[in-house]
Amino acid sequence: MPQLRRDPVTREWVIIAAERSRRPSDFKVGEEMRGKSVFSPTCPFCPGNELMTPGEVLGYRWSSPTSNTPGWAVRAVPNKFPALQVEGEFDRTGYGMYDMMSGIGAHEVIIECPEHDKTLTDVSLDQAELVFKSYQDRCKDLSQDSRFKYIMVFRNQGRVAGASLEHAHSQLIALPMVPRNVIEKMEGAARYYEFRERCVYCDMIKQETSYGERVVCENEQFIAFCPFASKYPFETWVAPKLHRRNFVQESKQNIRLFAALVQETLQRITLCLPSTAYNFTLHTSPINQDIDKDFHWHLSIMPRLTVNAGFEMGTGIHINVTSPEDAAKYLRSTSIFDELV
Amino acid sequence: MPQLRRDPVTREWVIIAAERSRRPSDFKVGEEMRGKSVFSPTCPFCPGNELMTPGEVLGYRWSSPTSNTPGWAVRAVPNKFPALQVEGEFDRTGYGMYDMMSGIGAHEVIIECPEHDKTLTDVSLDQAELVFKSYQDRCKDLSQDSRFKYIMVFRNQGRVAGASLEHAHSQLIALPMVPRNVIEKMEGAARYYEFRERCVYCDMIKQETSYGERVVCENEQFIAFCPFASKYPFETWVAPKLHRRNFVQESKQNIRLFAALVQETLQRITLCLPSTAYNFTLHTSPINQDIDKDFHWHLSIMPRLTVNAGFEMGTGIHINVTSPEDAAKYLRSTSIFDELV
Repeated sequence: MPQLRRDPVTREWVIIAAERSRRPSDFKVGEEMRGKSVFSPTCPFCPGNELMTPGEVLGYRWSSPTSNTPGWAVRAVPNKFPALQVEGEFDRTGYGMYDMMSGIGAHEVIIECPEHDKTLTDVSLDQAELVFKSYQDRCKDLSQDSRFKYIMVFRNQGRVAGASLEHAHSQLIALPMVPRNVIEKMEGAARYYEFRERCVYCDMIKQETSYGERVVCENEQFIAFCPFASKYPFETWVAPKLHRRNFVQESKQNIRLFAALVQETLQRITLCLPSTAYNFTLHTSPINQDIDKDFHWHLSIMPRLTVNAGFEMGTGIHINVTSPEDAAKYLRSTSIFDELV
Repeated sequence: MPQLRRDPVTREWVIIAAERSRRPSDFKVGEEMRGKSVFSPTCPFCPGNELMTPGEVLGYRWSSPTSNTPGWAVRAVPNKFPALQVEGEFDRTGYGMYDMMSGIGAHEVIIECPEHDKTLTDVSLDQAELVFKSYQDRCKDLSQDSRFKYIMVFRNQGRVAGASLEHAHSQLIALPMVPRNVIEKMEGAARYYEFRERCVYCDMIKQETSYGERVVCENEQFIAFCPFASKYPFETWVAPKLHRRNFVQESKQNIRLFAALVQETLQRITLCLPSTAYNFTLHTSPINQDIDKDFHWHLSIMPRLTVNAGFEMGTGIHINVTSPEDAAKYLRSTSIFDELV
C-alpha cells in the first residue's frame, strides 16, 4: 500500500508509491560520457581560457600569483549570464495590483578543479576540501553587502540537472530576500522548537542514528541519510551531527570531514546509479537579519531519476517511487572501497 | 536589469531574467514525432485494446453500449500503476517523530480520443468539449467518497513533461487531504479579500484586460493570459472572466467556450514552439470541506522549455528567461487561423 509521509519541518506531504517501487537498475540513468579529456580548448573553465570568463573574485593558486592566469586549484568568477545583477539601486515598486523589485543580487560560478575530466566525486579529498572552503570564503565576502539576505549555494551535475557546461562547477546566488523554502524550514524548525524545546534536525538525526534503516554513511562529525519524507528517489542529506546553525562558521577540520562524507555519498550514488545527473543545495542560515533565527545547516543531494509532471507542479506533492529505506539499503551496501581501489 | 516579481496570491517571488531573454526560436523544442498512425496495436489506450487497461469507470459511447469494447469517444479507467490506492482504511499514524498516513486515493486516466495520432490540441471542438465534460463527471462521481478532500486533474504532454504513453490522455488524482499548493492559493486569496474585499483573481483579470500586454486570447466567457509572475517561459492561464469557484459547476455552454479557448491557446503555443512538451493543471475548489472557502478556478498551462535546477529546488524561486509580456506578444501575434486552415 502506498504511504503519505510528512516532512517534519516544512509539513509537506510526499507520496511513497510502493506499487511503483523502483530499484537502481529500473532507472534509465547515465548521460553519455563522451570520452572527456583533461583539457578542452573551447571550455571557458579550463586553465589558459581564463579570459573567457568575467574576472575572478577568488583564486586558490599553487603557482602563479597573477589573477586570471593558469596556476589555480579553485577559481570563482561572476556568472557571464547572471540571473541577478550586482550593480544598481534596490527598489521595490508596485505595478497596478502587482509587486516587484529590482533584480539585485550576485550570481557566481565556482570552478572546482582545473581538470576538464574530473568531477567533485573523483577529485582528491584535498581538492574537495578546497571547494567547500571556497563556498565559505565567497559567502563571507558577499555577506558584507548588507543588501543581500540569503546566499544559496548549489551544484547541477549533468545536463538533465540543468548544467550547461560540463567542466565541474558549483554556483551561488545571493538574494535580496530570504527565499520561501528557507523561510518554511526556519518557521517549521521554530514551530517544532516551541512544541518540544528541541531542534527538529537534531531530533531527526537522533532518530535516524538509532533506527539506522535510512542511514547511508557517517563519520565523527557528519551523517548522510535518506530523509523519511524524501521527495526524490535516492535523495540524501548530509548534516552535522551536532547542532550548528551556520555552514560558514564550520572549522577547517570539520570542512574536511564534511568534504569526505559528501564525496563518499556521491561515490555511493554514482556506483548505484552510474553517471546519474543530480543537484545539491546547501541550506544554511540567512545573513544580515535583525533576528538571527536558529537553524541546523545541511546539504540536500537530489538525483534526477524521474521527471516532475503535472501532479507535482499542481499540488506541490511529490510522488517518490523508491522508499528512502530501500534507497539507503542500496547506497549502504555498495562497496565503494572495493570498487574505487 | 532583471526583475523580481511576486505572485499576488501565493506571494512567491520569481526572477524574470531579462539578461537571458529568450525568444521562441532560442528554445530547443520539438520531441521527435515518429510518424504516428491512427492505431497502434501495442497501445493500451487504442480501441480494441480495452482489456489491456483496468475496467472503465466512464465511457462516452457513440455506438456499442458495452463497456470495455470499441465504440467510445472518451474513456476513463483507473491507472494501472496508481500512485494512491482506492481500497483500504484511512489511517494516520506516527513513526517516532514522523507522521504518515495510508496512501488512500484514486488515480485515473482519461483517454481523450480513440485516434492514436491526435492530441487535445487538434481534435474537434466537440471532442475537446467531451474531454472537459469527462473531467466534470469523474470529479462529481469521486466527490461522493467523503474520504477525498481534493481532486487534481492534470495533463502531461510529451516525454519531458512526464508522459509515459503517447496516446492523448489526461489524469486525475483524488487525495485524502488538500495539497499545500491549493491551501496556499486559498489562503492567499482569503488574505487579499480581507484587505480589499475583492477576489484577487477577479482583480487580476480586470488588470490584465485593461493593460492588455499579457493577454493571449479571449472569448465571451474566458480569458487566456501569461501571469505577471510567470514561473515558466510561455506559462499561460485560462480562467473564467466572471467569479466562479468551481470548475465542476460550469454549464455545458461554458465548458464548450472553455474547451474552445484552451484549444486556441494550445494551438498558439504549438505554433510558436513546435511540438513542445507541456503540463497543464486544473485549479478548482476542494471537496468535502466543512468550510467552503471561496476560490476562482483556472487552468495553468506550463510549457517545458527549461529545466529546474539546484537554485529552483533549493529556494523555491523560479528563474524565467522569457518575460510574460514577450511571451504573450509572441502567442498573440501567431496567426492560428491562417496556419490551421
